[in-house]
Amino acid sequence: MPASSADRIIALLSGPDQRGLVAKVATWIYEQGGNIIHADQHRDQEEGVFFQRVEWAVENGETEQQAKDFERFGDSIGMKTKVAIAGEKPSVAIFASKSDHCFHDLILRWKAGEYPCSIKLVISNHEKLRTASEQYGIPFHHIPVSKGNKPDAEAQQLALLNQEGIDLVIMARYMQILSSIFLDTFGKPVINIHHSFLPAFAGARPYHQAHHRGVKLIGATAHYATADLDQGPIIHQDVARISHRNNVSELIHKGRDLEKMVLARAVAWHLENRILVYENKTVVFD
Amino acid sequence: MPASSADRIIALLSGPDQRGLVAKVATWIYEQGGNIIHADQHRDQEEGVFFQRVEWAVENGETEQQAKDFERFGDSIGMKTKVAIAGEKPSVAIFASKSDHCFHDLILRWKAGEYPCSIKLVISNHEKLRTASEQYGIPFHHIPVSKGNKPDAEAQQLALLNQEGIDLVIMARYMQILSSIFLDTFGKPVINIHHSFLPAFAGARPYHQAHHRGVKLIGATAHYATADLDQGPIIHQDVARISHRNNVSELIHKGRDLEKMVLARAVAWHLENRILVYENKTVVFD
Amino acid sequence: MPASSADRIIALLSGPDQRGLVAKVATWIYEQGGNIIHADQHRDQEEGVFFQRVEWAVENGETEQQAKDFERFGDSIGMKTKVAIAGEKPSVAIFASKSDHCFHDLILRWKAGEYPCSIKLVISNHEKLRTASEQYGIPFHHIPVSKGNKPDAEAQQLALLNQEGIDLVIMARYMQILSSIFLDTFGKPVINIHHSFLPAFAGARPYHQAHHRGVKLIGATAHYATADLDQGPIIHQDVARISHRNNVSELIHKGRDLEKMVLARAVAWHLENRILVYENKTVVFD
Amino acid sequence: MPASSADRIIALLSGPDQRGLVAKVATWIYEQGGNIIHADQHRDQEEGVFFQRVEWAVENGETEQQAKDFERFGDSIGMKTKVAIAGEKPSVAIFASKSDHCFHDLILRWKAGEYPCSIKLVISNHEKLRTASEQYGIPFHHIPVSKGNKPDAEAQQLALLNQEGIDLVIMARYMQILSSIFLDTFGKPVINIHHSFLPAFAGARPYHQAHHRGVKLIGATAHYATADLDQGPIIHQDVARISHRNNVSELIHKGRDLEKMVLARAVAWHLENRILVYENKTVVFD
Repeated sequence: MPASSADRIIALLSGPDQRGLVAKVATWIYEQGGNIIHADQHRDQEEGVFFQRVEWAVENGETEQQAKDFERFGDSIGMKTKVAIAGEKPSVAIFASKSDHCFHDLILRWKAGEYPCSIKLVISNHEKLRTASEQYGIPFHHIPVSKGNKPDAEAQQLALLNQEGIDLVIMARYMQILSSIFLDTFGKPVINIHHSFLPAFAGARPYHQAHHRGVKLIGATAHYATADLDQGPIIHQDVARISHRNNVSELIHKGRDLEKMVLARAVAWHLENRILVYENKTVVFD
Repeated sequence: MPASSADRIIALLSGPDQRGLVAKVATWIYEQGGNIIHADQHRDQEEGVFFQRVEWAVENGETEQQAKDFERFGDSIGMKTKVAIAGEKPSVAIFASKSDHCFHDLILRWKAGEYPCSIKLVISNHEKLRTASEQYGIPFHHIPVSKGNKPDAEAQQLALLNQEGIDLVIMARYMQILSSIFLDTFGKPVINIHHSFLPAFAGARPYHQAHHRGVKLIGATAHYATADLDQGPIIHQDVARISHRNNVSELIHKGRDLEKMVLARAVAWHLENRILVYENKTVVFD
Repeated sequence: MPASSADRIIALLSGPDQRGLVAKVATWIYEQGGNIIHADQHRDQEEGVFFQRVEWAVENGETEQQAKDFERFGDSIGMKTKVAIAGEKPSVAIFASKSDHCFHDLILRWKAGEYPCSIKLVISNHEKLRTASEQYGIPFHHIPVSKGNKPDAEAQQLALLNQEGIDLVIMARYMQILSSIFLDTFGKPVINIHHSFLPAFAGARPYHQAHHRGVKLIGATAHYATADLDQGPIIHQDVARISHRNNVSELIHKGRDLEKMVLARAVAWHLENRILVYENKTVVFD
Repeated sequence: MPASSADRIIALLSGPDQRGLVAKVATWIYEQGGNIIHADQHRDQEEGVFFQRVEWAVENGETEQQAKDFERFGDSIGMKTKVAIAGEKPSVAIFASKSDHCFHDLILRWKAGEYPCSIKLVISNHEKLRTASEQYGIPFHHIPVSKGNKPDAEAQQLALLNQEGIDLVIMARYMQILSSIFLDTFGKPVINIHHSFLPAFAGARPYHQAHHRGVKLIGATAHYATADLDQGPIIHQDVARISHRNNVSELIHKGRDLEKMVLARAVAWHLENRILVYENKTVVFD
């Protein structure tokens, strides 16, 4: 179909720095009749890497064709290029366990129009969130996970993700570790929320660790899941002030608000194509 | 002189939005052999205005000539254009009264290498900061201001600013209002720090006002001074949490840290050519 | 019934300062066999007013009787005294309109066990939140409000509040002004959330005002509702950073998270009997 | 001398929790004719430990005698008790190296009247801050430290601290580790500022570590120095947001402001007798 004035393309480019990249990209878009709405670039001068996010209104030609053409153009100038069409809604799966604060928060933001995506299903190792999911109108799949059945459970999860064409998994306080086989097979991004200011208090029971050490701030970290637990590229972090008056259960309680806010923001940035990953770090064009 | 690889030009452009602006600017720079280090643009879609900050390494030709040429080029495409050469240090005057927290903070940052400028003189309506100024090696000028002598005092101030070629005045808790005649005659930017979260508690004794109203946060606002008191374009703001335990003198005390930090940041952004003013607001390319 | 070891009494006292108040209160409790768990006091030295929050475990005698006795004791030493028994759950009504972010947030916190109260009903001038309320299991009452019927509508509201024995009304973005007749007749606390950093941008459309003025932070303020619109005692405030990149709809969007968090915290403090009001200000024992 | 109405005593108590402690302390003070200005207590319910800070106006009797009497009284009820007379100014030594941001900040706050103490001397392993110290009127001692001479250097430092009756050492970015022998011999508090959010990035070059890991916040931690490096009781922490745009030198730069603010606050709390240490953690009565 021909471009409507509302059609927009968002491209993320990264690769070895070279003179004239900004001009080449801007000129290509100009020559197709596009109008740049936002453009943001970054140079990692230590590594000699160039990063760009550029968003333009398509005013001539077919949007899908132009998106494909730009991808080829990006490749031709040596840039790793990822292109999205604004308004195309990626399919999302939420993985949850018993905690429901991130689960409700994500779904309510989606229902309020904050997230350009389709939440297609909820997968949980417990039954607890079935009613809530179904009241929201989102199919719920209970896949129990035990020491013995993990490979089977992950195969069932992958089959569902594949069947629904899922583009993004959000671990909304899902209390199981996804194996590297799962991550490799899925092959698409998985966002996790860790309940500490990583790298401090990695591993289990971070609020207990924080209380024991007597820190004055607790944190939360949203990151892409990788095979190395708690070591993936960090997307967003925030902290909240605590005091000696707060016992562990109050830390957990305060932590919930942090986890919700940090995960919510990270998911928004991902869905708006604002994040580039390199060398286990992120560039967030916010 | 020919460009060294270290020479950089920073340009700020603003004007009516039009298709192809990013491409035109990037291509002009590319054709001169420049290498864009940073570029950031913004569109005010409600007003149809385009803003850009672009910084490039000059790799061919004469830096000063290229800066002048770019200014002409900017004009030719309908953009209001301001060009600076990195490393050229604007001359700064500090206006102060008796409070010395912002005064020391600015000068110590400058001495620590945070500010690319020359602090040429201190002007004060009191003698109190003479010794400190002179220990820092900065000429100190005492110009008393009273109800009767204000036009005379301002004329003396202007003569000093003119004589030293001052490009920027920083009001570091200077407790006098600069007249619109002063501001017009000086014709260059004046940054002020107001000790509240404007527009709340404009006018005198804002900490007393805040205490009386029982607010839970106090603020500070750095803005460009204009003839309308406390109404100029806001550059930066921040707040700090207070409680019922804090009496007015503690608010003043906590406010000092806010004032220092907010003014320090605003001055840094100004000196790094990161601020564009339009319609009594600022665009800060941070 | 006799006190179980879990029974706790929380008392809030305020009145003219006098020597020995802390000793008198602590000794009274000690003599009844109580064990003070928390005690926090404050003196407004300018006004000569003493404030105290004291919480103790009842280890002898009848809890309800001891609570009543303490109230009498407080009166006898000249203190305005309010006593609550921990675990007694006040009855709460939520007033809402069409916006649902604060509505969901409050109810989900309550369901997660964060709020020691009973949410008895939702009153709205629109039908929009009926299904959501009923899915949560909370009775929903649609009482339309128009220019002509306001006294009638408020009479219906008051009848419901009276019938359900409501102790606290929370205005969760309820877009109608409660009349002073309503407030006087109800005679119990009403908490409102205003979508700005009061006193800045009081009145309508504060995000538009903030955008127009070009401020760098937006805020939200939870306060007790009084007959003077936006002038009641402030309980809690917070701010979020914005930039020139944010248009009005993004300010509204960012503001929602602020409103939720600020209202949620204010309600928690109220329900935990942490707030004393005096001279249109609050003392919050957090 | 007899108490003037301005004389105040501040006591910090800690020990095994027992019923009636608040009453006993308040009654003791009342019976001496004292008037409690502030009192704050905390119970660590997991550990069964009681903590209290109480400040009262001495209205009868001799202040110094009353302070001593209270200490005995505290002991008699099984509490570890520390008593200070408001206005008595502890003697402070600043240890510094080449970095001067914390050095200037502490001294300027002291000169501005923020710190009730006497800064008696500066000790440095470099000559760099001699002129600045002397301009401030504070004796400067250059004690070089090398691998070979550390015991000698520390002996010289201890001799100076002893001779000047120093009550508190502040390590203002002093880039040497104080040995456990030094800490034991000195036997009084030493406050250090670590340039990370401990326990993350303990050890050397924390900003480089933070940059490498790609965190989104950097931090600073003020703590009491102990023989275990970076493991002492944490007094205060804060963080600042960073992005991919910030290289290591900008992190260092941003970190300076954090270090100043965090150290400044920790020193204030210490000097106001607001800190109790137990089990390698702090209770801060702020």
